[in-house]
Amino acid sequence: MRSAVPDIVVRRLPIYLQTLCRLREDGVEEIPSHALAELLDISAARIRKDFSHFGEFGQQGRGYQVGKLIRELQHILQVDSIWPIALIGVGQLGHALANYDGFSHNGFRIVALFDSDPAKIGTTVNDIPIQPIEQLEGEIRRRQLQLAILALPAPQAEIIVDRIVMAGVKGILNYTSATLHARPGVIIEHINPTSVLQHMTYYIERTSS
Amino acid sequence: MRSAVPDIVVRRLPIYLQTLCRLREDGVEEIPSHALAELLDISAARIRKDFSHFGEFGQQGRGYQVGKLIRELQHILQVDSIWPIALIGVGQLGHALANYDGFSHNGFRIVALFDSDPAKIGTTVNDIPIQPIEQLEGEIRRRQLQLAILALPAPQAEIIVDRIVMAGVKGILNYTSATLHARPGVIIEHINPTSVLQHMTYYIERTSS
Repeated sequence: MRSAVPDIVVRRLPIYLQTLCRLREDGVEEIPSHALAELLDISAARIRKDFSHFGEFGQQGRGYQVGKLIRELQHILQVDSIWPIALIGVGQLGHALANYDGFSHNGFRIVALFDSDPAKIGTTVNDIPIQPIEQLEGEIRRRQLQLAILALPAPQAEIIVDRIVMAGVKGILNYTSATLHARPGVIIEHINPTSVLQHMTYYIERTSS
Repeated sequence: MRSAVPDIVVRRLPIYLQTLCRLREDGVEEIPSHALAELLDISAARIRKDFSHFGEFGQQGRGYQVGKLIRELQHILQVDSIWPIALIGVGQLGHALANYDGFSHNGFRIVALFDSDPAKIGTTVNDIPIQPIEQLEGEIRRRQLQLAILALPAPQAEIIVDRIVMAGVKGILNYTSATLHARPGVIIEHINPTSVLQHMTYYIERTSS
């Protein structure tokens, strides 16, 4: 199911891309490989090796062309056009996500909001109207949405995933505390602060001792 | 700086622990290794190999003792007692995090809130008062807080990190869009939905083709 490029490499590509985008915003057109390495806190050899999975993006001993490398990475990550996203659950976290300004410059736009609370229906967040959860499948099909973000209460998550997958969603970013069952052909990623904190605490005392 | 256990293994331990805690809540005391594997969508051999870095937690061909394994994993991840956390920035996302119910059962408790907006000072979220940002270092030192969560505007992040690291913070969970410089002896993890989405889109078309 997954391609031959190691997933650990794929996970670094968004970090490269976002750093390069910031450089471009700052007007940087070319960057020596050691300077990029320092910015990223990743060795220049590792960066070159990562890129080598996809072709040659720089010349040995010379720098990287920022704009060219951004376009290559956007193409590889398939974010050279905008992916529209459904956001399901518009509580405090959903509001924060709907207002998050980091999506639009990076290939994503939240275009539809859903909630089961009748009091919220018809109100807007960031100019996007909140729709009733009953319209979920219809709207996903009509707009051919392939990505969804879950920010609803955990007990509702599994059944909502069944519904959106049936309607055509292929990638789900799960902000709930629910552990979702795998579905064939669907990529589910979990944003779980507890896991990240527990990963940190593993290292904390070991680092300082 | 990091221990000999591969980080990819360490990253799976919180997932094991959280799944086992849910099993215990459901009254499960022992689970066959193949059943745990199915629940986790990870092979039984991989799970056994991961655990083998830390000793023997099960007997070949028999199941795992849920309670015993939880205690072992809590000890390894150093979450057998509660880590108090400072949350800096109490906007929509900060509110959601302060109200998040996934921390307390998993070794963490947000105990101090800070914001720079005078209108918020003295109000409470989840019974925790919001303190002025000027009291940040004093409160971190007084309570010996080693963990902090950043949910403040990105441009303020780097300078706040300097301040909290000086005050003794060793682990930082960064919810801002800022890429923070590495600091020696400090573990910084970034919760970045854009990176996770870009990781998904890498696979989406490749999976369905």
